[in-house]
Amino acid sequence: MRILIKNVDIVTMNEQNGFYENSNIVIEDNIITHIGNIEEIDKIKADYIIEGTNKLAMPGLINCHTHLGMSLFRNYADDMVLSEWLTKKIWPAEAKLISEDIYWASLLSMSEMIASGTTSFCDMYFFMDQVVKALEVSNMRASLARGIVEEDINSKYKIEENEKLFKDYDNALNGKIKIMFGPHAPYTCSPEFLLEIIDSASKLNASLHIHLSETKEEVEESYRKYNKSPIKHMYDLGLFELHTVAAHCVHIDDEDIKLIKEKNVYPINNPSSNFKLASGFSPVNKMLKEGIKVALGTDGAASNNNLNMLKEISMASLVNKAVDNDPMSVTALETLKMATLNGAYALGIEKEIGSLEVGKKADIIILDMDKPHLCPRNNIFSTLAYSAYGSDVDTVIVDGNILMEKKEFKTIDIEKVKYMANEISIDLLNNR
Amino acid sequence: MRILIKNVDIVTMNEQNGFYENSNIVIEDNIITHIGNIEEIDKIKADYIIEGTNKLAMPGLINCHTHLGMSLFRNYADDMVLSEWLTKKIWPAEAKLISEDIYWASLLSMSEMIASGTTSFCDMYFFMDQVVKALEVSNMRASLARGIVEEDINSKYKIEENEKLFKDYDNALNGKIKIMFGPHAPYTCSPEFLLEIIDSASKLNASLHIHLSETKEEVEESYRKYNKSPIKHMYDLGLFELHTVAAHCVHIDDEDIKLIKEKNVYPINNPSSNFKLASGFSPVNKMLKEGIKVALGTDGAASNNNLNMLKEISMASLVNKAVDNDPMSVTALETLKMATLNGAYALGIEKEIGSLEVGKKADIIILDMDKPHLCPRNNIFSTLAYSAYGSDVDTVIVDGNILMEKKEFKTIDIEKVKYMANEISIDLLNNR
Repeated sequence: MRILIKNVDIVTMNEQNGFYENSNIVIEDNIITHIGNIEEIDKIKADYIIEGTNKLAMPGLINCHTHLGMSLFRNYADDMVLSEWLTKKIWPAEAKLISEDIYWASLLSMSEMIASGTTSFCDMYFFMDQVVKALEVSNMRASLARGIVEEDINSKYKIEENEKLFKDYDNALNGKIKIMFGPHAPYTCSPEFLLEIIDSASKLNASLHIHLSETKEEVEESYRKYNKSPIKHMYDLGLFELHTVAAHCVHIDDEDIKLIKEKNVYPINNPSSNFKLASGFSPVNKMLKEGIKVALGTDGAASNNNLNMLKEISMASLVNKAVDNDPMSVTALETLKMATLNGAYALGIEKEIGSLEVGKKADIIILDMDKPHLCPRNNIFSTLAYSAYGSDVDTVIVDGNILMEKKEFKTIDIEKVKYMANEISIDLLNNR
Repeated sequence: MRILIKNVDIVTMNEQNGFYENSNIVIEDNIITHIGNIEEIDKIKADYIIEGTNKLAMPGLINCHTHLGMSLFRNYADDMVLSEWLTKKIWPAEAKLISEDIYWASLLSMSEMIASGTTSFCDMYFFMDQVVKALEVSNMRASLARGIVEEDINSKYKIEENEKLFKDYDNALNGKIKIMFGPHAPYTCSPEFLLEIIDSASKLNASLHIHLSETKEEVEESYRKYNKSPIKHMYDLGLFELHTVAAHCVHIDDEDIKLIKEKNVYPINNPSSNFKLASGFSPVNKMLKEGIKVALGTDGAASNNNLNMLKEISMASLVNKAVDNDPMSVTALETLKMATLNGAYALGIEKEIGSLEVGKKADIIILDMDKPHLCPRNNIFSTLAYSAYGSDVDTVIVDGNILMEKKEFKTIDIEKVKYMANEISIDLLNNR
């Protein structure tokens, strides 16, 4: 199968920040085989041609921290204090979830992500086999972890579930699925329990996905209990000897940043969620300046309340300038990199995706640039970071497969998904 | 002319925060004559019927601080320090503007605003007769001020231009145009010059639109020069004896807030612009809690880089929670009010628009709610403030006239506007 994308502007997000105007991309099966001008383009034999006039191609966005299942709780519990949000609303609702709910919630979340240009995501929740089932439908790329909270002496079954998930699905779906281990956080897992998870993940050479230093209270509790920050606590436990995706990293100090850098930990910034829950502002610029590959995520739709990476890009870039009192903090190009190449690094697949380059997998999104809010386009990176909406995404390709074209879903029965998710949400939150 | 909007969900934004499910709105000419259930709806004789299934009607959004002409500079100068942004980029470019540029820039800005649900705006710039000309085409509602900067002894002509604008156009276009006076800021106008403007506006009983306390440097300079804050300086000069729209109010203290409250000044929060230029965070929640009617604006597209009020609503609500360390700060309902009824108060037309109520003017937007990112809708105010995109706006009605329907512009030749704005921007920034 050969796809030709014709006459399209191309933002590559490669190391040279290459930009091509009115150029071409060739995809053979799932690999990008050509980027750039083609002299005799009419002679190219393509099985499928996508006309790119007035459009822009860029790498698919990578949402590095989310909880797909939580879309069922969208707009269910807002403008609340975190502890009440969790104990009175989210946890009671989560306790009633059944596996089928997660299937439909995951498809709903995938629809929203595809529609706004996300091609890969990093998910941590439960009933993860249902997320796999949904991925078999949507054909997106994902790294999945079983969220592991230590509740009591019997919680070890969650580690075993994560192991089984790894053995059953790591590298499934033409390599699009990777399985990570999901220790929820240092405040929900004892050191001994975390060591068990580390041991189990190490044996499988798996990566980790964990929440770290999200709130001030969490850091204070860590100092009370362990006399050190959550980051130092994890460092000392040996968690960072494994490839680690660390969601949030909001309340971190210079010493934490040193450890993050030393161990190549990948911090995931989730601006909307951190703001909405009043968690605070992560020192994104400081980490980027240290050369740390900060990536970007939406968190779950219950605390955002979208799964729209272009919204997060804009949020991260704008707000950090005011936080740092520096209009040059977290530039347009830097946030675009956070949402693409840095995301690929965080997922450990930077050789496969994250930029448009010959030889890489064809995870490509095409934006319709023919909109008043994208006119004029005096700087392409600023246009994408500050002016583009998620809804400007027109076409989405993952691993060479077209998942959305001209805004039409090609793999998901969107009417059924919206219907089912809505019915389940009403039942779950009102009747169960 | 009678328009019937059928089977639509309705967020009224009236004082009772009324919400109707699957209900109806009747518009006679430019006035809302009915909101609510209609028993025998098929017997209603309507000249035009809008089917509202899966849609939501709410008051048109009110953008209380913008500079339409600056859309020509969109993405032209980003990630820069404010002083360099102004002196090296914006001011040299503005010096080359000719009146025709403002006509096309204004139509471009109006297109973006209509497409994202704004029905009224408050503009301050120059060549304002061109904005009037553009309004005659678009049919939006607006309050216009000639931006008055004191450059030298001859600057008085700008006050005269503002007077002429008032005499020529105040209440024009079926009352949709109001003319205000636009003293730019205390740091660009001497006290003597400001008194001249106040005097001139007083004689015409006109309102004022001014920038106040946008940056820390501005406030420091005010203390150096006048030994008081910009707010106290304006208070003492008597500026607040007139109805005043005060853009920004970022760096204000408790004493300033007291004066704002005492004089019923309308502070306009411009979150994206304040963040992008690293100006800081306005104490929005504190002002709202004092009962001050804070409204919302985008500022110009050069410092945002959108004119999308739903983006500002989300930005204001999310970020203020983190700033105040309080997830209940600036709730979904409060930001929606800032963007609607408070905006109408700021423009002095709260009896005419700002909420959907019988007897008010028909400034109505209709959102298409049938989207994955708006599913499920567990709380309608949260859905609108946290999950809706500007691009969800489907239909826009101003003063009973349909300006956009099913995303199609009815008054603006959008292809020509995009073409002209783009050509002018390229010429202006590269060739002139």
